[in-house]
Amino acid sequence: MKKITLFAVACAVAVPLLASSAYAQFAKPEAAINYRQSAMTLMASHFGRMQPVFKGQAPYDAAAIKANVAVLQTIAALPWAAFGTGTQKDSNAKPDVWTDAAGFKAAQDKFSTAMTQLVAAADAGDLDKLRAASGDVGSACKGCHDKFQVKK
Amino acid sequence: MKKITLFAVACAVAVPLLASSAYAQFAKPEAAINYRQSAMTLMASHFGRMQPVFKGQAPYDAAAIKANVAVLQTIAALPWAAFGTGTQKDSNAKPDVWTDAAGFKAAQDKFSTAMTQLVAAADAGDLDKLRAASGDVGSACKGCHDKFQVKK
Repeated sequence: MKKITLFAVACAVAVPLLASSAYAQFAKPEAAINYRQSAMTLMASHFGRMQPVFKGQAPYDAAAIKANVAVLQTIAALPWAAFGTGTQKDSNAKPDVWTDAAGFKAAQDKFSTAMTQLVAAADAGDLDKLRAASGDVGSACKGCHDKFQVKK
Repeated sequence: MKKITLFAVACAVAVPLLASSAYAQFAKPEAAINYRQSAMTLMASHFGRMQPVFKGQAPYDAAAIKANVAVLQTIAALPWAAFGTGTQKDSNAKPDVWTDAAGFKAAQDKFSTAMTQLVAAADAGDLDKLRAASGDVGSACKGCHDKFQVKK
């Protein structure tokens, strides 16, 4: 299990914040890899916990789903800034992330579009649309993983 | 480096969602530990990257700080539901998390109060208040880690 040391991380941030952006700053490649994998872990959890509802195995609570989708939406924006040059080693990212940057960006955009649909469906409280959008989100995740993630 | 397999995680969520809550569901203790450590990693990153601004080492961009604080606010609510019974083993949580549940809750509340101040200061675009609130957030983090986290 990885050790979390907030102040060690905070102190390690020696690179000044890019004041005109909210881009991530990482002192070391390992920090970027840990960050993006952490975001993926949270996304998988918040996406996964809704599936019993979409499968009809648990009752639909519109407010709970909406709150969960809002968390997912925030985290879904995070990982991409952490795929900087030099952050492949010891990660499960394929070289294609960097050699096919346009393809990787297109995969992100597909995911982002599906997430926008999921948010809209959650806001509307429409279970059928939620199911459809969740399927699209899942397909976007899988499509990107199939293409850009090393199978282990 | 941990392996992220979105669909494996999604499929592992066999426990029905508690429809009346947005509480986390974890198939195994390791999933809960991984989840809360992932949230802490993201919190440390988003807290740490603002420090150069608060220390006067980087210019203050109100919009960038506000956006970053909003992300931090969302993630700050996440870890606590993942400290369920039986999730101490192989983690760096002290037994006190469970034997002193009231103390752990008080530490969370202290952090939450400081986070509320940080959000208000970011919304107001007030750098002096941001510095003060950031100090309080940092103190709340450190206080909780000192008391409830195993030193390694």
